[in-house]
This record gives sequence, C-alpha cells and structure tokens, in this order.
Amino acid sequence: MKILVINPNTTASMTDHIAKAARAATSPGTEIAAVNPARGPVSIEGYFDEAMSLAGLLDTIHRHPDCDAVVIACFDDTGLDAARCLTDRPVIGIGEAAYHFASMLSNKFSVVTTLARSVPALEHNLARYGLDARCARVRSSEVAVLELEQPGSNARQRISAEIGLAIREDRAEAIVLGCAGMAGLAAALAAEHGLPVLDGVSCAVKMAEAMAGLDMRTSRLGGYAPPPAGKLERIFGT
Amino acid sequence: MKILVINPNTTASMTDHIAKAARAATSPGTEIAAVNPARGPVSIEGYFDEAMSLAGLLDTIHRHPDCDAVVIACFDDTGLDAARCLTDRPVIGIGEAAYHFASMLSNKFSVVTTLARSVPALEHNLARYGLDARCARVRSSEVAVLELEQPGSNARQRISAEIGLAIREDRAEAIVLGCAGMAGLAAALAAEHGLPVLDGVSCAVKMAEAMAGLDMRTSRLGGYAPPPAGKLERIFGT
Amino acid sequence: MKILVINPNTTASMTDHIAKAARAATSPGTEIAAVNPARGPVSIEGYFDEAMSLAGLLDTIHRHPDCDAVVIACFDDTGLDAARCLTDRPVIGIGEAAYHFASMLSNKFSVVTTLARSVPALEHNLARYGLDARCARVRSSEVAVLELEQPGSNARQRISAEIGLAIREDRAEAIVLGCAGMAGLAAALAAEHGLPVLDGVSCAVKMAEAMAGLDMRTSRLGGYAPPPAGKLERIFGT
Amino acid sequence: MKILVINPNTTASMTDHIAKAARAATSPGTEIAAVNPARGPVSIEGYFDEAMSLAGLLDTIHRHPDCDAVVIACFDDTGLDAARCLTDRPVIGIGEAAYHFASMLSNKFSVVTTLARSVPALEHNLARYGLDARCARVRSSEVAVLELEQPGSNARQRISAEIGLAIREDRAEAIVLGCAGMAGLAAALAAEHGLPVLDGVSCAVKMAEAMAGLDMRTSRLGGYAPPPAGKLERIFGT
Amino acid sequence: MKILVINPNTTASMTDHIAKAARAATSPGTEIAAVNPARGPVSIEGYFDEAMSLAGLLDTIHRHPDCDAVVIACFDDTGLDAARCLTDRPVIGIGEAAYHFASMLSNKFSVVTTLARSVPALEHNLARYGLDARCARVRSSEVAVLELEQPGSNARQRISAEIGLAIREDRAEAIVLGCAGMAGLAAALAAEHGLPVLDGVSCAVKMAEAMAGLDMRTSRLGGYAPPPAGKLERIFGT
Amino acid sequence: MKILVINPNTTASMTDHIAKAARAATSPGTEIAAVNPARGPVSIEGYFDEAMSLAGLLDTIHRHPDCDAVVIACFDDTGLDAARCLTDRPVIGIGEAAYHFASMLSNKFSVVTTLARSVPALEHNLARYGLDARCARVRSSEVAVLELEQPGSNARQRISAEIGLAIREDRAEAIVLGCAGMAGLAAALAAEHGLPVLDGVSCAVKMAEAMAGLDMRTSRLGGYAPPPAGKLERIFGT
Repeated sequence: MKILVINPNTTASMTDHIAKAARAATSPGTEIAAVNPARGPVSIEGYFDEAMSLAGLLDTIHRHPDCDAVVIACFDDTGLDAARCLTDRPVIGIGEAAYHFASMLSNKFSVVTTLARSVPALEHNLARYGLDARCARVRSSEVAVLELEQPGSNARQRISAEIGLAIREDRAEAIVLGCAGMAGLAAALAAEHGLPVLDGVSCAVKMAEAMAGLDMRTSRLGGYAPPPAGKLERIFGT
Repeated sequence: MKILVINPNTTASMTDHIAKAARAATSPGTEIAAVNPARGPVSIEGYFDEAMSLAGLLDTIHRHPDCDAVVIACFDDTGLDAARCLTDRPVIGIGEAAYHFASMLSNKFSVVTTLARSVPALEHNLARYGLDARCARVRSSEVAVLELEQPGSNARQRISAEIGLAIREDRAEAIVLGCAGMAGLAAALAAEHGLPVLDGVSCAVKMAEAMAGLDMRTSRLGGYAPPPAGKLERIFGT
Repeated sequence: MKILVINPNTTASMTDHIAKAARAATSPGTEIAAVNPARGPVSIEGYFDEAMSLAGLLDTIHRHPDCDAVVIACFDDTGLDAARCLTDRPVIGIGEAAYHFASMLSNKFSVVTTLARSVPALEHNLARYGLDARCARVRSSEVAVLELEQPGSNARQRISAEIGLAIREDRAEAIVLGCAGMAGLAAALAAEHGLPVLDGVSCAVKMAEAMAGLDMRTSRLGGYAPPPAGKLERIFGT
Repeated sequence: MKILVINPNTTASMTDHIAKAARAATSPGTEIAAVNPARGPVSIEGYFDEAMSLAGLLDTIHRHPDCDAVVIACFDDTGLDAARCLTDRPVIGIGEAAYHFASMLSNKFSVVTTLARSVPALEHNLARYGLDARCARVRSSEVAVLELEQPGSNARQRISAEIGLAIREDRAEAIVLGCAGMAGLAAALAAEHGLPVLDGVSCAVKMAEAMAGLDMRTSRLGGYAPPPAGKLERIFGT
Repeated sequence: MKILVINPNTTASMTDHIAKAARAATSPGTEIAAVNPARGPVSIEGYFDEAMSLAGLLDTIHRHPDCDAVVIACFDDTGLDAARCLTDRPVIGIGEAAYHFASMLSNKFSVVTTLARSVPALEHNLARYGLDARCARVRSSEVAVLELEQPGSNARQRISAEIGLAIREDRAEAIVLGCAGMAGLAAALAAEHGLPVLDGVSCAVKMAEAMAGLDMRTSRLGGYAPPPAGKLERIFGT
Repeated sequence: MKILVINPNTTASMTDHIAKAARAATSPGTEIAAVNPARGPVSIEGYFDEAMSLAGLLDTIHRHPDCDAVVIACFDDTGLDAARCLTDRPVIGIGEAAYHFASMLSNKFSVVTTLARSVPALEHNLARYGLDARCARVRSSEVAVLELEQPGSNARQRISAEIGLAIREDRAEAIVLGCAGMAGLAAALAAEHGLPVLDGVSCAVKMAEAMAGLDMRTSRLGGYAPPPAGKLERIFGT
C-alpha cells in the first residue's frame, strides 16, 4: 500500500519531519511517499497561506495517480474538499483525523495550535465536521510554524503550558496538537500531562491505511463529483 | 494484536456472522476474539434491550483484560461510555466508527437501520457524537434484526429500496448500514447503487487496529475516569 | 395517586432521604412508594455506575405495575428512555424535571453537581433534552454523593461556594442542584444567594402528579414502543 | 391557590372556553380567575396581534397582584418574558408548558396550529426554549382561531388530517395542539390517533399548580429583574 | 429617499442624538425623519420596557406610510417582526444591522451593551437571527441608557474598559456597541482599540438605503403576511 | 467611490453580464471596475473549481489596491476569508450579501442554485455564516453556469419551477438566486411568484457601498490579520 503524504507548504525540512512521523505510524507493507509543492507559501498560517497553497497541492495530487490514499499534512486540512473531487481514493486531512480519533478517546478535547491567526480557520473546520460539539477550545501557543523547526526555541515549553491551561480551564480530557510540525512532541507531552495527546500525522496515516485496507472510495455523488471531462486537463495542462 | 469483539446480544449465530465480518477486515497479525454474553436480550432493538444488555456486556469486558482494543458490535453503541471507564484500551462502537468513516468519504450520509423503534436511539447517538450535522436522515427498513439471519427473507431488497430513497430524497452521498447483522451486504449494495455503503463492523475493527497500533489509550480524566477502588470488585464479585 | 420513586443505587439511607424530600412535595392524596434495588452500585457517579444500576432499576419498575407515575431519583436520569418502554405511565427523571422547571423561572441556569466524573453525563443529557441551550454551565463541587449523607462534612459550604461562582462567572439566574442527595439544601441555599435553587426530587414529584392528574401516558409510537411479546418475560423471568 | 389565567385577546367566548379547560385541569383547592383585556386584538394570529395585545396583557397582570401563579393562555406565549419582570410569581405560557410536557412523553412531537402566518413565531419560541431539538415540525391546519368557536365548522376534521400527516411524515410520537381554542379537542384526537395529544391550557395550569405548590418564584437576577422604582407606576398610571 | 427612524422610547433628547447619528450616515438625497412615540417608557432596558413600547412604535409606523424604509433605533430591535407585518417597505433594526455588518468585517464580534438586565434579550435576538454563531459574548458595561445622555458621566471609560476585556478574553475581532445612545462613541473607541467598533444607527441607515435603493420589499408570505382586512383599522382606530 | 467587482472565473461574457448587474445597482458616484483573472476555471461549479480560481482571484485583488471595496462575484464566495487578509477594505461575497439581505426581508429563504455538485459548498458557507438557521433549503435547478449565458436555453423555466417547489415544500418566504449568472432574472421571477427574489450581485454592491460609505475596515485582529512582512511579496513576486 502506498500513501501519498503531502506537506502543502514548500519547506522541505518540514516535509522530512512529517515523513518521519508518518513512517513511524505505518503498518508493515505501507510505503509513504512524502512530497511538497515546488511553489507556494513556506508555511501555512491562516486563510491567505491556505488559499495560495491550493494550486500546488492539487497539482501534486493530480501528478500522483498511483497512490492508494492521500494524506494532507497541514493541520488546517488545506484543500480537503477540492482534493476529494480529484481522486476517488480516500483523502484524509491531519486535522480531521486527529479530531475524529480524539472524539473516540475522550468526552471533550482541546486543540493547541500555533498562532492566533490560525484559530478561526480551525474553528471553522471543526464546525464543518460537526466536531465543534466535542472540542472545548482551540488555543494558540503563539509558537510560529517554522519556530518548531528551530533547535533552540522554547516552543515545547510554551505548548506544554497551554496544555496545562486546557486541562484546568477547559476541562479537556485529551489534547490535539494543532500543527504538522508538532508531530514529534506528542508522546512526551502525553506522559508529562497524563492524558492522550494526539498528533494528526500519525492519526491520518492510520486512517488512510484503514480505508485503503478496506478498499474504500470517496463518494462520486453530489459535492465530490469529479470535474466534467476536459476541465482537469485544461487546468493542469495535461 | 488481539481485538475483543463483543456482540452484546445472546444470539450466537449473529456472533459468528459478526466474527466473520470482523476477520475479513483485519490486517495480518490481528486476532479477533468474538464473544457474546450468556444472559440478556436475544436482539437489541431500542432503548430497553440496550439497557438490559449492559451488565452482560460490561462483565464480558471485565473478564477479558488481555485485549489491545474492544469493539462493541451493536449499532446503537451499547454501553460505549461505561465501557470506556472499565479499561484504558480503546473501545470503539460499530455505529460510531461507521459515522466517522462516512464523514470522511462524503459530505452527507444516511443511515438505513432495522426497526422504527431503534431510530431515536441512533439519532441520539449521532447528536452526542456531533455527527448529526453530517447525517441526512436515519431511515428504518422495517427489517427485524433476527430476520437478517433468515435465509429466505426479502430483507436485502427492502434495505436496497430504502437506500434508493436515501439517494433521491435525502441527497445522501454515502450509506451507513445500521445493524451489525447487515455486515455481509455492504459490498453488493455499494455496487448496485454506486456510492459508498459502510458496514460498522469492518470500520470499527480497522479503527481499533489503528488506535492499538499507535498504542493509544482512552483518557482517564473526567467522564471516563475509572471507578474508585473497590467499586468494580463489589459489582463484579471478583 | 401513587408515585413510585426509585433511588437506583442501593444505599437505603439515601432512599429515606429522597422519600422525605418527595413526601414534602406531594399534594394531599398522593402516596409515595420509595424503593431501591437490592443489587447494584452504592452510589451513581458517572457512566459505569449508571450502566450497572439499570437492570435493578428496570426490574423494580416491572415489579410495581400499580403506580400512577414513576420518578427516577438519580440526577443523571438513569435508564429514563428504557423505563418509558416498560410502562405507559409517565416516567420522570429528577434531572430532567429540574431542568424543565428552571427553564421556566430563569433565562439561564447553572447546575452544581458532585464529582467532575459526572459532568459529561449531565451535559450529554442536557443536549439530548435540548436544554443545553438554557444551561450556562455544569459545575462540580467535588463533594461525593455519600459525603452528603455524613453529618460532619463541609459539603454544604463547598456547594454554596460553587453557587457563588455560578452567579458571578456564568451569569446564572437560577441554580439546579445536581444530586438527589442535595434535596434538603435547596431552601437554605436559595435564601442565602437570593435566586431560585431547584431540587430535582420535588420538581419530579410535582411533574409526576401533574401528568398523572391529567391521566397522561407516554407515547407508544416510535422509540418508546413496548418490547415485543415475550421479550420482557424472557428477560425478567416472569 | 389562585391561578390567574389570561386570554390576551378580547374575545370573551374564548376566555370562557379557556376557563372551562383550565378548571377541568385543576386539583382540589385551586381557583381559576380567567380574564381578558378590554382592548386589543380579537384573536392572536402572528407577530402583529401579539405585539398589540401586550399592553393589555401586562396591565391585567399588574392589576391582579393577589394570584399565586399566572398562565398566559395564548399559544404563542405572548409577553411571557415581560410578564416575568412584572411579578415574581411563576408565569407559564401554554405553548411553553405543552412543549415541556410533550418532551417528557415522547422522543419527538409535532405541533398542529391554526394559520401559516403563526408558524414562524412558534418556531422562534421553540428555538428560544431549546425545544426545537424535540419538535419534528410546526404544521398549520389553516383553521382560523375564531373558526374554532363556530359550531358548524369542519375545523376538527382538518386538524385531525394534519395529525395524520404528522405521524406519517414527521414520525411524530406526540402532538401538541397549537391554539388555546383547541383545548376541548385533545382527548378525542388522542383516542382517534393512538398517541398523546397535548392541550397547552391544562399543561400550563398543572405546571402553575406545581410551581406554586412548591412556592417557587421567578428569578429576580438578570433578564427578569423588576423594572426600577417608578417605571411601573409611570407606565401603568398607578 | 425618506427613511423613518423611530426611537421607541419617549426621551426626545435621545431621539435628537439618534437623528444626528442617522444623518451623518446618509448618502446625498436621503432624508431622515426621526420620531419617537408620545407615550411609553423613557428608556428601553429589558423585556418589560420593550413590551410597553410596542403599541407606540407600531402606531408611529402606521401613521407614516410615506417612507421608503423604516429603522427601529433601539438596540433590542423592539417590535421588528410585528413592524414587518405592517408595511412592505424594508424595516431594519439597529441591533440586527450591526450584527450583520460585523459578521462581514470579522470572524467573531462581541457586543458591549448597557445593563445586565438587557443581555438575555440581546442573546435571544442573536440566536433568532442565527448570528449567535458569530458573537463571542454579550457584555454589559453597567452604564444605564440615560446616563449616556449625561455630560459628566464616566460612561465612555467604562465602555472602553469592557471593550478591552472583549479583545483579551473573548478574542473578539470587532465590537458592536449595544445601545442607540452610544452612536457617537464608535469612531473614538475604534481608534483607541484598533479594531472595528460598530454603531447600529449608521449600519441600519445604510442598510435601509441599500434596500430602498434596490426597491426591495419585505415578504408578504408566511410570518410577515399583513393582518387581515379590518384588523388594523380596529386596532389603530383609523 | 470605486468598487472592484471580481468574477473569479475566466469567462469574459459572464464578467460583462455581472458588470451590467453591478452598475444597475450603484448609487450616483460609484464606479464599478469589473475584472476576471486571466487564468483559472471557465466556470465555478463545486469545490475543485473554487480552489483552482483562488490564486488568480487573490492576485487580482493584490493588483488593485486603489479600490474602496471589493465584491467577489461568485455565489460560493470563493476565497472570501483569504481576500480579507489581503486588504483592509471591505470584501463582500455575493452569496453572503444575498443571505444577509434575505434574512432581513423574510423569516426563512430558500436558495436556487445551478448544479447539485455546488450544493454542499453553499450549505457549508451558510453554516459558517450562521445563516443556515434562516435557510429552508439549498436547491439545484440542474442548470449549468454557462447555460445561463446561452440565449435559447430553458434555464429560466427550470429555475422558476424550482422556486415554485421552494414556496410549496420549504415554506420559503424569499428566494436567493444561487449564481452570479442569474442576476438578470430576479425582477421577473419576483413578479411571477409574488415574493422577494434576491440577486447577490446587486446586494453585494449595495453592501460594499454601505461599508465604504461609512469608511469601515475589515478587522486586522485574529483570523484576518495581514500576512507577515515579505510573505505577500514572495508569493506575488512584487
């Protein structure tokens, strides 16, 4: 089984980081193809970056028709609906996957993400999935995405402090880490705080394996119907 | 990995049916232990049966501490919250699992279940999970649970007719089959109607494998905190 | 008129306490039959206790067919839906009754219950009744159920402090006491804080009187349809 | 105990009709004082009539300070919130009461009211109470309020037909009659259709008795705080 | 174009204040007719005042049939639904208009109003409009309406302090001022706090101009259907 | 005042059509600059087209810094959130504007759009704005966007038939036309069906005029904060 894991930003070191987290989550026999677009924003923090990464993201999916499932490895689930029109293979967002997993491990969870500017987009997604009913609060740690890549930053401490607040103030029973770049921190933070801490990359890889293992396909009726003949070709130039 | 799959009713032929569906969904290395309580209702159709199956269900979980995850194989997710207090291993309901999967394959799904008396309990669950936002309608086919076990019944035709209505009237993009006993019908109905048709048993087994594979645990904070010392022993007599 | 008031836990002193509160609320001519099951949890604090009390609770209702209405005297409304399948006489939960009354005396109320582990089950109920829209917050006082039975505890002070917070932080206009064992405290706490403080036992008894007085019956259509012939007998052995 | 039952329209025959229904619902010792304002609309059908009946309704309450509870006997619960600012005695609307009772006798109910123009105001109320979650649909029978007072009309047949549709199309488990003038029809319609049919007048009288019997008062904090000294006098001229 | 701007309370100095704010918002060619009823409450603070101002408000609209649009210049949108039954010209409430504008300038806004007693009515309106989903919180500054008319009061400081809290605690991205009497403060408070601060009077005037400019009319179907022939005349005596 | 009206698809005849509708809605002194991107989909029907039009849409806004407000003239409000990060001038989507206007002219409206594949995206937007509470149903007429540009098509009849169904089945009190290409049909359909029929282009132009006339700006706090220095330049190459 081959899972295409796309980092929709152009920062290759972050793609490597994500690939490592993805591979750590696989079952035997699963291959991870981790890629990022050549053009677009270097990090995705809010609505504008999301929008500007879409063309690269969708083009990448279009050029990898041979995978069994697709994981979109940005926590705002960039382009998820559009991607589902492009292929009938399961497409899973890492935000979405983490919310669904957390819903089955706790009565209520909180999200700890990067910057305040990203919070409304995540709240919007939660409402769209219906899972705002299960989310106590989306919190920002004011740690920028690329700061997570810097060895000397105190990012981990700030995220940990925010988790403490989520437990005390939100009565959160589980924590969802709200950025692909936080993938490596989940186990240590879970041990420190004594509750499940979920990383979306591993959840999404497992979800993709589960769906591909059952040979499930995205619906072709209604909103995810494929674009009519010719439209894709005209857009992607192939 | 060992997954305990519990049919909470006492009909052993249905447990066999569920075990078969569960095994068909496993990855290499996963063992399915399919069991049912010795006492309780012969089928679960509505609130009363649900309530009367709980003691047997929970006792069964208590007596199987060696599994890596638990699947509750009744579509109304009988006793799901209580079971999560009993063990920190992931506990997945087949209704819940199917709703979560369907939410990632379609914009909106409909459920086709057995009897009208079961509909409010399922609507109640969907609202609790937050996924009522994603469910167009819960429909009853007026096929009784045990009728699904009878070779000569026209159960399949009635379920198929209801799926047709769900597509036309509800604009459903996917169908969730609302009874563990319907597990064998999903593939043929999907082919017939041209949309994803989800069976909860396979979804829940895959979800259990995914969570156990990541060594995830149910939260011990808040609503799923384990009963205080002594209470379990007093109840279960061990 | 005879109202069956069931304490679903096995602590007889608490049943006496509840009976006293129930009798204080009756109109002339109303008889209270207060009972508790012989087997099950000694207190109900969260999902597991709820589940394990159901068989005893439902058996008790089944063995008292001669009452005009039933009150389930546990604040999490244990087994309410299942009980309504067993008899067409009105069945009222004390949580439910208090929420409905509070909705007609205030714009918004808060609940002060016992332990944090009970909060999600109450939030779940409020959402199911639709009355989460009217509830500002469910608060736990961290007073255990059986502590309320102990003369020397400071339970009353801790509950009072939590009411103070509900007024200041939640802008609650009324308070619902979230445990049958708190029945005796309502009047004094209302006087102390200057707002309505509702005890579910008296609300439920009055609601049961009201419904029985109008000869109302629970619907037999849909979710509360009685179990089919033979199922009850097979379960209860009679 | 004395309950003030106010018909907020000026049609005295309808007040008599309501008084009769109210008295049929009382317990021994309860006195019904049924009144209507001297000025205002002859019937209340929609937002405009509601608004124009408020001054008369509130003046009536102001001039009857000696009652133990107030019932507003118009199904749109005219002026309910304002009335609660005027007196700390319980004030119950007949719409509100019927919805709360129906919520405890069924999983889902439908409302059958008079004219289409009244439907949005009732939907608005249901949403405000939180009980839209429990209401399958508000249906209009296109029977005008005063037609219910006319002996030869086929109003009953049209209402009955609409109840039939509510059972079949909405899967309603109970019916709420959406007009004070329909009070006399409930028992026969319940017998005819085999499900609970609720009349708001009797529900509200029982609710008022229940609350007054427990000496409950409306909250004086927040939205129902009484108008400041002098304001009432300036308005009512006394 | 002529816009009728009604202050539903009887305080003429406030009508002048509102008229000034309204005129400041007009486009060339728009005439503002600012009026208040002769009888009714001197200020509108909560449900009771609202109710008692309705007859005067609706009579005023009835006597001004020559306007192109109506603005109800009280932040609780007093009588909005009833007014829409009286005329097919657009009727806009200043609360409503401000919420709609704020929804298009921010992800989430908070309201800063006068007294705590007014908060539930505003929350009720927001829920009715659907815009509670966009409102982080309704806050009271405990500044009374008529205090805003007093030169020496520290009303502005208290409102400003509450805006500071809304930004920090609610993560509000915009502020809606919750009283017609605050119209003059918006620009300075926006400059001070660095976010949009909306005054309902100017929003409503612009909305009325927009609708009248497109010759839009209120629907005559359903809830806003005009009262039947004769009813208006009987009520208004003309 | 200059309003930039962007048709996010590349069909110039549709841009002309939109420009005409926009100009018909302007007040004296308002200039409409109607443009479309050079590259991207020829029509926007569903999630994929939306996503692929974003880069062209946002680049167009970036290259027109001199406008006083921006209108996004595609009914799915393509890129609305991202556009608000790019400029502090008001940005209005035509779908959004029409929903807000319809909410002030009716209790409930229905949308009649083009193809079934577009329906989920519109439902998603309505939920995001909070206005799903006011929308009875989103209906598709199965008229493709570019068919609206073809003289001989029976598009108008099919749209009219769907409006008839919305009135009868949804009890819609107003209709929102769900495509920029339907702008010219509103007046005739309103006359034919006797209820408000709203075209988003004129609503959005009026809303943009209203906001620009009051010199309102989009919030810079939270979700619409501008991208950090350098990011825009790196993306747009200027």
